[in-house]
Amino acid sequence: MWRFDPPLRDMRFVIDEVLGAPAAWAAMSDFDGLDADTAAQVLEEAGRFASEVLFPTNSPGDLEGCRWNDGHVTTPKGYREAYQAFVAGGWPALACDPACGGQGLPAVLNAALYEMLAAANHAWTMYPGLLHGAYEVLHQHATGWLRDLYLPKVTSGEWLSTMCLTEAHAGSDLGLLRTRAVPAEDGSYRLTGTKIFISGGDSDLTDNIVHLVLARLPDAPAGTKGLSLFLAPKFLPDGSRNAARCDGIEKKMGIKGSGTCVMSFENATGWLLGEPNRGLAAMFLMMNAARLHVGLQGLGHLEIASQNALRYASERVQLRSPTKPADAPKGPADVIAFHPAMRRQLLTLQARTQAARVLAYWAGHALDEQASHPDAATRAAAGERATLLTPVIKAMLTDYGHYGADRALGIWGGHGFVHDYGIEQIVRDSRIALIYEGTNEIQAIDLLLRKVLPDGGAKLGALLAWASEQCEGSVHAEAARAGLRAVADAVAALAADAQADAELPFRAADDLLFALGEALLGAAWARSDAVATAALARGDGDAAFYTDKQTLAQFHFAWLGGELKHRLDGVAAARAVLPFVALAE
Amino acid sequence: MWRFDPPLRDMRFVIDEVLGAPAAWAAMSDFDGLDADTAAQVLEEAGRFASEVLFPTNSPGDLEGCRWNDGHVTTPKGYREAYQAFVAGGWPALACDPACGGQGLPAVLNAALYEMLAAANHAWTMYPGLLHGAYEVLHQHATGWLRDLYLPKVTSGEWLSTMCLTEAHAGSDLGLLRTRAVPAEDGSYRLTGTKIFISGGDSDLTDNIVHLVLARLPDAPAGTKGLSLFLAPKFLPDGSRNAARCDGIEKKMGIKGSGTCVMSFENATGWLLGEPNRGLAAMFLMMNAARLHVGLQGLGHLEIASQNALRYASERVQLRSPTKPADAPKGPADVIAFHPAMRRQLLTLQARTQAARVLAYWAGHALDEQASHPDAATRAAAGERATLLTPVIKAMLTDYGHYGADRALGIWGGHGFVHDYGIEQIVRDSRIALIYEGTNEIQAIDLLLRKVLPDGGAKLGALLAWASEQCEGSVHAEAARAGLRAVADAVAALAADAQADAELPFRAADDLLFALGEALLGAAWARSDAVATAALARGDGDAAFYTDKQTLAQFHFAWLGGELKHRLDGVAAARAVLPFVALAE
Repeated sequence: MWRFDPPLRDMRFVIDEVLGAPAAWAAMSDFDGLDADTAAQVLEEAGRFASEVLFPTNSPGDLEGCRWNDGHVTTPKGYREAYQAFVAGGWPALACDPACGGQGLPAVLNAALYEMLAAANHAWTMYPGLLHGAYEVLHQHATGWLRDLYLPKVTSGEWLSTMCLTEAHAGSDLGLLRTRAVPAEDGSYRLTGTKIFISGGDSDLTDNIVHLVLARLPDAPAGTKGLSLFLAPKFLPDGSRNAARCDGIEKKMGIKGSGTCVMSFENATGWLLGEPNRGLAAMFLMMNAARLHVGLQGLGHLEIASQNALRYASERVQLRSPTKPADAPKGPADVIAFHPAMRRQLLTLQARTQAARVLAYWAGHALDEQASHPDAATRAAAGERATLLTPVIKAMLTDYGHYGADRALGIWGGHGFVHDYGIEQIVRDSRIALIYEGTNEIQAIDLLLRKVLPDGGAKLGALLAWASEQCEGSVHAEAARAGLRAVADAVAALAADAQADAELPFRAADDLLFALGEALLGAAWARSDAVATAALARGDGDAAFYTDKQTLAQFHFAWLGGELKHRLDGVAAARAVLPFVALAE
Repeated sequence: MWRFDPPLRDMRFVIDEVLGAPAAWAAMSDFDGLDADTAAQVLEEAGRFASEVLFPTNSPGDLEGCRWNDGHVTTPKGYREAYQAFVAGGWPALACDPACGGQGLPAVLNAALYEMLAAANHAWTMYPGLLHGAYEVLHQHATGWLRDLYLPKVTSGEWLSTMCLTEAHAGSDLGLLRTRAVPAEDGSYRLTGTKIFISGGDSDLTDNIVHLVLARLPDAPAGTKGLSLFLAPKFLPDGSRNAARCDGIEKKMGIKGSGTCVMSFENATGWLLGEPNRGLAAMFLMMNAARLHVGLQGLGHLEIASQNALRYASERVQLRSPTKPADAPKGPADVIAFHPAMRRQLLTLQARTQAARVLAYWAGHALDEQASHPDAATRAAAGERATLLTPVIKAMLTDYGHYGADRALGIWGGHGFVHDYGIEQIVRDSRIALIYEGTNEIQAIDLLLRKVLPDGGAKLGALLAWASEQCEGSVHAEAARAGLRAVADAVAALAADAQADAELPFRAADDLLFALGEALLGAAWARSDAVATAALARGDGDAAFYTDKQTLAQFHFAWLGGELKHRLDGVAAARAVLPFVALAE
């Protein structure tokens, strides 16, 4: 019963109709010859891989988990075969530069791919999930033989990669990192230190693993300005084993098929990537892509929860519903999908999932425009849009993915608590996405304090104006635009009041991020409604599909609109004193 | 680091000062000689059992889980010894009738005991958790030899008990139950059917298990009016094994130390309890006590999450906080408890936990007044209060317990996702409490459609008037009373609009329950604030403790007051059409 049906029709709706991406690609030389049909075929193949190859390993992999023995991590049954098929299919290279062996397809298609991978098997997706970021780092910073040796292997996925940042005492606070790097005579470095929470630090999926490690050079300044980035492979170019070892794996709440490793580096050999003491900037290049991808995990969780909840609620019969459709079957009880409380939850899941997809693909498409649009001003504007959208997508989509799945679990009643029914694993797997790649609280501070307030709200204003344009042609345009304006007003008021209360933006940041996110979901629904209405007016078929979009847009504004108001009220209430707590002894 | 400190001081604050229970007990002959000191000693002993005996089995029991083999369930290491100590301590009989071997202590002390048990080990608490309900059923309905044999064993806890209701096709909808009961010549019955989700259906904790089973007599009416209640022990009075067998246990998200059994009855011997076809009413006697106890589980989850989150946040050092107390230690980073986003979460946890305790103990004390107050009108009023409070406590406290623990997990960052740190188990364990003993959606319907609307809001009005009196003497009295009035207004408007829209109460029920709950939390804070303010004015010591209560009351109204408004907005918005979803194919 629990299964993954790739949401291909909805994806095409967003990419082709909401974004109008194929028309945009036609104007970008990087995507020469790519049309809607080709993109649809790519997604169909990706969906087949996700649902037929990957999904069957998800539930057994959760029960089996990873095993650690003497430095070696064994992944669950079927993970290695699925990964080999993934590499053979060329999927890691989908959105990489053809000059490095990539396929050169748009980031928005890569986003759709990763949404489906996360929906089908989040734990497995952790392994290739870091590849694209590593590709970006190597593509930009690796030179000479380092580039020649490692970039093609990472592009193709033949070798996996890790991000070795966190240490036991330094999670959100990378300035506290202690791992040291000492120059050797041959131009390499010797790395010494212990990293924790390293996804894929060891595994049996590939013959080699390319660790990207943050460490301090001798005499480096304290804090984040003293961090440099190094490449330290599991096996050195001469085939010998590097002194980078997995000392154990964590026993976790979820993503049990993903080995979360303690990595000890004991005079391990590494090479500098980029400039000394500029490691954090190089890593953040990787981090922005990673944050969008974490947001896509939240979208994947919403999708798999939503579609399965609807299937279960369409079959499970319990109690009489106070109302039901005229053509409902007669019987001693009704399907639970008719019951008002369940209907509301199902509609909420659908409305969240579909608008979240619009938001995520808007960001993916903006990255494509930033990289490939012929017009410089359009490139710059798209880049600024992606910069603002990234923390919103990371935080809001992971929050709605996890709490959406958790609420959805209740639709199964007691069965939802039982492993066999699938949903409880999604709840457990999805929790980590709110934390890693920068906690959601840090996303909120990043958005408000680093990206919105410093320029007096100018970039935010541009995003809101762009979102307002998206609403054109919908009966909900005014409601959506009122939401966007309310966010602008809230930010202006915050900026003014922060003059006399420097802590205020920190107190208001979480609610502000979600208020902006909700306003953007409103714009996404207005845009979807406008597209659906135009399609119905043209009468070009699929009427039930487009009518459903209108219904969900209506539902969003009638039933979910209160969430934006609640978040704006929260921003306003943040003027209150927030007392210090008495510390525990 | 992760541990359970019994919140004895807070419990005494609520029982002695907020409720004024000792003065009330003095007027009740059932509690003759019980004073505040004796009650405090009982709680201290209970806290010692919970923290020293029970808590150490919690984390290992989660990893080990229950094992099933050929009909027998083996509980995790230490569970049996803990249970024997529990029985030896007389804890199951705490609030039972002395005439049946009980200790005759107030229900509110039993509530405090079960709060601590759930906080220390929810899974283990599932076994004795059903005892009190079974005691109530037997106390009221068992007669003759059945009473003589089973009531003392269940009162003392020497034998455990189960509630066998659910069947695979009948969870929320007990009217669909199919298990049959056929009369035998000796006055007993032969039960045949399969029950699922039976907590403690088999275990190695006690020598016998007393199953209470809902089944249908031959020619019984269809639906819930054809259900009768039977007692079917694991071992029959002659020592032979009854044909009630555990066919397997579920692999669950949490409470893994609690065996959730499939039970098959194949001509099992049972005896009728109460009247034929009146089984549901007898079972609901058990259910109301059970629902309050499930709410107490939510409170226990809040407490253990809250106290451990504060300890972790008081030690963990990361990043600079934008503000900190003047006496904070200097260093390269601050404890995370100072950071605004974490402070807000910690204060929210504390404010929720402490007000939830007031609400739960109000209900426990109301049960004591209902049973033992000398004045008939007071008994009746207390009973009606408990009836209304029960669904609110069951639904809201389990919701806040689970989602509160889940939000708290983020305070640990990535460590929160790791088993060793404790919080992830609480998140998993707590999820089931929203579902069992009537899902939270069913609690909301029970509250609004069965308890509030039928008498035109009269009983609700009495509860709100009582709550309003509780606010006296606080600077927050007016804010709290405004919340209570707003709920009354919302119900009046619902009642009026439901005339033309019969589905409306079903659409509004969830938000209405939480709005009432939030308004009651406001009254709980106003009452706590008034008590603390009076104590400070008297200057009778513990000033820091009482000042903290004032601070949290202030925080509740400034930072959490928006939740009530949001829920009331939700009730208002429920006038909108809630479309039917297209069923899955």
